[in-house]
Amino acid sequence: MMDSSQEVKHPISLDLYSFGEGHFEKHHITNSEQIIPFLESEHKFWLNMPNLNNIDLLNEIKNIFDLHTMAMEDIINTQERPKVEIYDHFILIVVKMLYSRNNLADLEAEQVSIVIGKNYVISFQEHAFDIFDGIRVRIENPSGKIRKHGTDYFAYTLLDAIVDEYYSLLEKVTDKIEVLEDEIISEEKRVKLSEIYNQRKSIQLLKKVIWPTRELLSTLKKSESFLIKRRTLPFINDIYEQTVEIMENLEMQRESITTLVEIYMTNISLKQNEVMKTLTIIATIFIPLTFVAGVYGMNFEYMPELKWEYGYWFTWSIFLGISILMVIYFKRKRWF
Amino acid sequence: MMDSSQEVKHPISLDLYSFGEGHFEKHHITNSEQIIPFLESEHKFWLNMPNLNNIDLLNEIKNIFDLHTMAMEDIINTQERPKVEIYDHFILIVVKMLYSRNNLADLEAEQVSIVIGKNYVISFQEHAFDIFDGIRVRIENPSGKIRKHGTDYFAYTLLDAIVDEYYSLLEKVTDKIEVLEDEIISEEKRVKLSEIYNQRKSIQLLKKVIWPTRELLSTLKKSESFLIKRRTLPFINDIYEQTVEIMENLEMQRESITTLVEIYMTNISLKQNEVMKTLTIIATIFIPLTFVAGVYGMNFEYMPELKWEYGYWFTWSIFLGISILMVIYFKRKRWF
Amino acid sequence: MMDSSQEVKHPISLDLYSFGEGHFEKHHITNSEQIIPFLESEHKFWLNMPNLNNIDLLNEIKNIFDLHTMAMEDIINTQERPKVEIYDHFILIVVKMLYSRNNLADLEAEQVSIVIGKNYVISFQEHAFDIFDGIRVRIENPSGKIRKHGTDYFAYTLLDAIVDEYYSLLEKVTDKIEVLEDEIISEEKRVKLSEIYNQRKSIQLLKKVIWPTRELLSTLKKSESFLIKRRTLPFINDIYEQTVEIMENLEMQRESITTLVEIYMTNISLKQNEVMKTLTIIATIFIPLTFVAGVYGMNFEYMPELKWEYGYWFTWSIFLGISILMVIYFKRKRWF
Amino acid sequence: MMDSSQEVKHPISLDLYSFGEGHFEKHHITNSEQIIPFLESEHKFWLNMPNLNNIDLLNEIKNIFDLHTMAMEDIINTQERPKVEIYDHFILIVVKMLYSRNNLADLEAEQVSIVIGKNYVISFQEHAFDIFDGIRVRIENPSGKIRKHGTDYFAYTLLDAIVDEYYSLLEKVTDKIEVLEDEIISEEKRVKLSEIYNQRKSIQLLKKVIWPTRELLSTLKKSESFLIKRRTLPFINDIYEQTVEIMENLEMQRESITTLVEIYMTNISLKQNEVMKTLTIIATIFIPLTFVAGVYGMNFEYMPELKWEYGYWFTWSIFLGISILMVIYFKRKRWF
Amino acid sequence: MMDSSQEVKHPISLDLYSFGEGHFEKHHITNSEQIIPFLESEHKFWLNMPNLNNIDLLNEIKNIFDLHTMAMEDIINTQERPKVEIYDHFILIVVKMLYSRNNLADLEAEQVSIVIGKNYVISFQEHAFDIFDGIRVRIENPSGKIRKHGTDYFAYTLLDAIVDEYYSLLEKVTDKIEVLEDEIISEEKRVKLSEIYNQRKSIQLLKKVIWPTRELLSTLKKSESFLIKRRTLPFINDIYEQTVEIMENLEMQRESITTLVEIYMTNISLKQNEVMKTLTIIATIFIPLTFVAGVYGMNFEYMPELKWEYGYWFTWSIFLGISILMVIYFKRKRWF
Ligand SMILES: [Mg+2]
Ligand SMILES: [Mg+2]
Ligand SMILES: [Mg+2]
Ligand SMILES: [Mg+2]
Ligand SMILES: [Mg+2]
Ligand SMILES: [Mg+2]
Ligand SMILES: [Mg+2]
Ligand SMILES: [Mg+2]
Ligand SMILES: [Mg+2]
Ligand SMILES: [Mg+2]
Ligand SMILES: [Mg+2]
Ligand SMILES: [Mg+2]
Ligand SMILES: [Mg+2]
Ligand SMILES: [Mg+2]
Ligand SMILES: [Mg+2]
Ligand SMILES: [Mg+2]
Ligand SMILES: [Mg+2]
Ligand SMILES: [Mg+2]
Ligand SMILES: [Mg+2]
Ligand SMILES: [Mg+2]
Ligand SMILES: [Mg+2]
Ligand SMILES: [Mg+2]
Ligand SMILES: [Mg+2]
Ligand SMILES: [Mg+2]
Ligand SMILES: [Mg+2]
Ligand SMILES: [Mg+2]
Ligand SMILES: [Mg+2]
Ligand SMILES: [Mg+2]
Ligand SMILES: [Mg+2]
Ligand SMILES: [Mg+2]
Ligand SMILES: [Mg+2]
Repeated sequence: MMDSSQEVKHPISLDLYSFGEGHFEKHHITNSEQIIPFLESEHKFWLNMPNLNNIDLLNEIKNIFDLHTMAMEDIINTQERPKVEIYDHFILIVVKMLYSRNNLADLEAEQVSIVIGKNYVISFQEHAFDIFDGIRVRIENPSGKIRKHGTDYFAYTLLDAIVDEYYSLLEKVTDKIEVLEDEIISEEKRVKLSEIYNQRKSIQLLKKVIWPTRELLSTLKKSESFLIKRRTLPFINDIYEQTVEIMENLEMQRESITTLVEIYMTNISLKQNEVMKTLTIIATIFIPLTFVAGVYGMNFEYMPELKWEYGYWFTWSIFLGISILMVIYFKRKRWF
Repeated sequence: MMDSSQEVKHPISLDLYSFGEGHFEKHHITNSEQIIPFLESEHKFWLNMPNLNNIDLLNEIKNIFDLHTMAMEDIINTQERPKVEIYDHFILIVVKMLYSRNNLADLEAEQVSIVIGKNYVISFQEHAFDIFDGIRVRIENPSGKIRKHGTDYFAYTLLDAIVDEYYSLLEKVTDKIEVLEDEIISEEKRVKLSEIYNQRKSIQLLKKVIWPTRELLSTLKKSESFLIKRRTLPFINDIYEQTVEIMENLEMQRESITTLVEIYMTNISLKQNEVMKTLTIIATIFIPLTFVAGVYGMNFEYMPELKWEYGYWFTWSIFLGISILMVIYFKRKRWF
Repeated sequence: MMDSSQEVKHPISLDLYSFGEGHFEKHHITNSEQIIPFLESEHKFWLNMPNLNNIDLLNEIKNIFDLHTMAMEDIINTQERPKVEIYDHFILIVVKMLYSRNNLADLEAEQVSIVIGKNYVISFQEHAFDIFDGIRVRIENPSGKIRKHGTDYFAYTLLDAIVDEYYSLLEKVTDKIEVLEDEIISEEKRVKLSEIYNQRKSIQLLKKVIWPTRELLSTLKKSESFLIKRRTLPFINDIYEQTVEIMENLEMQRESITTLVEIYMTNISLKQNEVMKTLTIIATIFIPLTFVAGVYGMNFEYMPELKWEYGYWFTWSIFLGISILMVIYFKRKRWF
Repeated sequence: MMDSSQEVKHPISLDLYSFGEGHFEKHHITNSEQIIPFLESEHKFWLNMPNLNNIDLLNEIKNIFDLHTMAMEDIINTQERPKVEIYDHFILIVVKMLYSRNNLADLEAEQVSIVIGKNYVISFQEHAFDIFDGIRVRIENPSGKIRKHGTDYFAYTLLDAIVDEYYSLLEKVTDKIEVLEDEIISEEKRVKLSEIYNQRKSIQLLKKVIWPTRELLSTLKKSESFLIKRRTLPFINDIYEQTVEIMENLEMQRESITTLVEIYMTNISLKQNEVMKTLTIIATIFIPLTFVAGVYGMNFEYMPELKWEYGYWFTWSIFLGISILMVIYFKRKRWF
Repeated sequence: MMDSSQEVKHPISLDLYSFGEGHFEKHHITNSEQIIPFLESEHKFWLNMPNLNNIDLLNEIKNIFDLHTMAMEDIINTQERPKVEIYDHFILIVVKMLYSRNNLADLEAEQVSIVIGKNYVISFQEHAFDIFDGIRVRIENPSGKIRKHGTDYFAYTLLDAIVDEYYSLLEKVTDKIEVLEDEIISEEKRVKLSEIYNQRKSIQLLKKVIWPTRELLSTLKKSESFLIKRRTLPFINDIYEQTVEIMENLEMQRESITTLVEIYMTNISLKQNEVMKTLTIIATIFIPLTFVAGVYGMNFEYMPELKWEYGYWFTWSIFLGISILMVIYFKRKRWF
């Protein structure tokens, strides 16, 4: 959302890429009316809106491309769930770009909306990230597939760039979990339970974003809009299958985490057992001995043993006897 | 439910809003027969029943609008599950307004029933809450969408007001869970397990209400009643998607709570470990020393060490030796 | 099941209610042949079999009404799962009446089978309970709906009476769980885990009975038998929705019980922690002091401190010093 | 599977039951060619293969009845999952007979395959068990249903005999679990956790066998093969419903076991709490007393109390005072 | 994936098996152009690519057989999820060969892609394993089914070889779990929790591979491509049913592991109980005795008992009395 209250007429600075078989031009747009002639061009064009700050521009875009009010609302409201909506003369795809500023636990989601029209693709980014740089390079390549195919293929390349990011995030999470796994099983380093749970959160967030993305790709595959050509379907299917694959891997990682928590808990219990055993061994050996020593520390006048010449040495033999019996008992119980 | 036994003919006091493109009138109804002429009007009208106390009035409304007996029963029985029923000449929507009087754990549900007819919308509230105040303001705005669209759009605005409340409740629950999360992970404040479970209960109640609401919106989207115009569908879809989004977030929060309980339990175990270790360290150091002291506190007549000049100091060296060995042992075991 | 071996011809004693718009007669049947003329009557009639003891009578009924062998078997076998079967000239509904003789944990199920024919309804009870008393009253009321509607509506009233019982059982379980919840959270009364599990069992049994009942009502709604009139559907739908509602509430109660068990377990752990802390505090304070006392209880001839004038008071200052340090340590650890 | 390497031509000894309305003959088959004339008979016949040892015979059967290679493979491979396969001129049903040689934990599965043809039923048993003895009796009864109905009804009686066995196994498991339940709740007898888990395993195995059986009966109900007559469907439906019922009961028993394990675990924790409390009470009472006794056991020359006439009695009053205070403290904490 | 940067034109060395009814030839291919004539042959042929190293060869294959770009990409990308894709003139099947180099915990997956064409089958292996050796033998057998049937049957034999491997892996996992089960229940050998979890991982990986394989076989069964003949369907169904069976067994093993972990945890708790009881018994017997001994070790001048002739023996009778009472108490509590 944006607050439009103190909005002034910003200067516009957009790049419009006009392309087609054997054709490529990059235009700098400073006024939204410059876009209109391209709508009638024989070439396709791509318009990237790097942010959603300029509400007036968004309204002009809405009018130029005749976008539905609810479509525009979905583009502007960055809390939307990923989805596809098939309108009569355009398709709206809302997806999420995921990235982590510092560490994995702070995954953030940036909304990217893609509008596919007859000869144009518009992409709306929540913030000006550089996620589409690779595509700018490919579009300038005269022999690449992008130039030959239609706007549906171009939209596919944008979606592909986003889904590729999911893959690399999945790998980061997987690596981090494997490190935790090694640390926990080797018991070499003290792991805090909250570190494990941070990974669980990352997985949760990834799933929350990828699940509806998978759904929208499935819908797109089955859509019968004239804007999606039959020969583009295998490409859409490919990223669809990637989202299925990622979901399955996330599920496996989630189970790994459950396992890690169980091992963690068991290690705590095993450590407590060890502490208890140490205490019990020492206490059960020495408490009876201390009692015996206490007995011969009593001050009764009539205690025959005290006067016996070998009393002291006999007492020591009792001490040793009790100790040895106890140690044998513990050995038998396999306490150490 | 109401007990109709000692019911007397109440004076009626209802507001009826007649509106349409370029038209707005607010009428004060004191007798249910005053409603009848509006049924034939070219304008739409909205009638809000602020409570369900006056059983006679409800019966008169039933007859004036020709509502089915079972429909009226659903309106009056405030234990209904949210649902939509498509009758021949009207649509009945039963939803729940959720609010918390004091704190989140005491969420209460007020039933709101909406009847959509050809040129009227009737809303029945369980109690006279002010949830539709915003709509009263919008209806008085001459250029707003409400005036231009039909009764289906008007019903949408009522539903939208209710679903918006779910969102704000979701946010309150989410905030509360995040506070608990911080308190539990930082271990700074003693959290009671019942506080965590109160949040779980709120989530449960929210889900119980929102799940069938989502279902009814989905049914409404697919209904083919003449009362729902095609151009209203995107609006209904929008609140439908909101309920999907809320359900997903509730599910995530529910998982967060499960995680919190696990961390809570682990903290208890870790604290117990620490207590046990403290006891074990002190006891295993001093119990053997006390035994040694006990030995030399025995009163045997023949104990050569007692007469040895350095016996006392030698005993101290034994005390120190045992202590140091024990401390080294515990250090190795990384007990502190 | 019954063993028909030593069966003798019982005297029959059945009530047959013949009714219709402006008509009501109660007949006492002592011979099954008395039923036959009613089959040709213009009025509807209801025949209630209060038990399944008289196998000959059941066979006569089977023949008079031309019931299928498998239908009769389902009526007699009281272990049937609730279900509806649509035959050509009649509908068989098998449901379960639930009741608790003493306490909730001993819920028992009595099978009730209902046969809906063109102008008759037969109900078969496993035992002679008084569950249909309310219906006997309503059928005698000349202006009630029962008289006007068909046999399908009459069957609905029987089912409604049974589903209403489920509601009251749900409420009893809910109340009992809330009492347990208060007792567990307040920790005032010792709750036994088996009490919690008894509630879980009641819920399990209720779900086992209501789940297929819900299913059969759904089937009944969608059946296209000429025996179910279109205008009866909203009534069937109403009890269908009640079973949905009850299932959802049972699910919530089941989750509450899971929560209660977790709180119960946590309370056990917290109590153990408290016990351990008490022991540890006392032991870690006094064990070192006892050691010091033991040292000065040794009988070495050369122990300079023993002769020192202030030795005793100095030792007390050591006792106090150790105690104070320990208390400070425990305070810092927030052990009390 | 069988190893056909050292197979010699076994003498064949099979019973073939030819039956029909008013007809019954038992034939002893010693050569597979004797079967061929019955295929053209106006009567139905049943052929039971008591084991799968004679591979030559199986091949002759395959050829006589024109069974598909894969069908024969399924009959011979006794690891098959229960299933039905509808071929053009026969139906193959593969089910599992369950039995326990010694105790429930050792449930074993014997595969039974049933081939339904136009006028024959062939049953293949993995081993020569007596599970179909009851059917041999019924087939000899001239007025029984078996003689009148077709081969589909006959196959139903075979399946019914097998499903009845599932019921009795379910009852055995249920009884065993109830005994365990009583022992665990009453805490009278030491139950080993592995006994509980043995029941879990039995349930797992029963479910593994019954689940696909249920599936195959459902398929059979909906099959449109000419070999299944319409009037047999209620009978198939009856055993189908029994499998549904058994599955539901198994699910309930599985939940009971989960509950039992939880109670078992809680009992362990409660016992540990009791042990800890006993230790803590004794230790926290006597450790301070022992300290006090230790103090007055010190040998300082200047200890005024030692000379005081009432010192000893005063010390005893300290002992008693500490003990009483401790007991009051523990009473307040409700430790005993 | 492979890095094609420093790729040079490798010499090719492939075996091509041309076969048909009464025909078998093995050709050694050293140049991809040698394959082309076989495409027009009346016989079928099988081409096995033992690895994916030679990117040029793969491109030539792509062109010779006219494979779709996305199909080739799926063959080369060895991270694909198992799947089937039906193209116009060929079917692409991607599956995973599973094997364990050292121990089960290190299961590795090798991708195998199978292309079924009109008169050819191409198999692509990630590495040159010998999994298809058995098939080479069978293809040389003149009377085998392989020669008579079409390319679909041949592809089935390849898939069958792979699914058979899953079975043997399942058996290895099952055996390992049973060993662990015996060790844990007998408590004879110390099992590490991580050993149990390694099995869980193997099961997870098997499921991850077999689940989509099952799906692809189901798709293949229902495909209506002209490349899959009707008479091959029972064979595909057979391996489909095997994957269902394996999945069910894996699920059972997964549950067994959950059970094992619970028993493992319980054993830890029981051991801790035993340790605690040992400590408590020793401590609660001797701590009071030591106190009594301490009392008569005090040095008060006025202690009448000390002078009593039988004081010492009376004290011993107190020691014995307390010990006996304690032992009786513990016996009653059934602590040993
Ligand atoms: Mg954002
Ligand atoms: Mg990609
Ligand atoms: Mg890993
Ligand atoms: Mg792919
Ligand atoms: Mg523990
Ligand atoms: Mg209410
Ligand atoms: Mg809204
Ligand atoms: Mg949070
Ligand atoms: Mg929206
Ligand atoms: Mg929208
Ligand atoms: Mg039956
Ligand atoms: Mg009963
Ligand atoms: Mg009711
Ligand atoms: Mg409650
Ligand atoms: Mg209702
Ligand atoms: Mg009602
Ligand atoms: Mg209703
Ligand atoms: Mg514990
Ligand atoms: Mg087969
Ligand atoms: Mg098979
Ligand atoms: Mg077997
Ligand atoms: Mg039976
Ligand atoms: Mg029971
Ligand atoms: Mg039945
Ligand atoms: Mg413990
Ligand atoms: Mg690909
Ligand atoms: Mg690989
Ligand atoms: Mg195989
Ligand atoms: Mg096993
Ligand atoms: Mg096979
Ligand atoms: Mg658990």
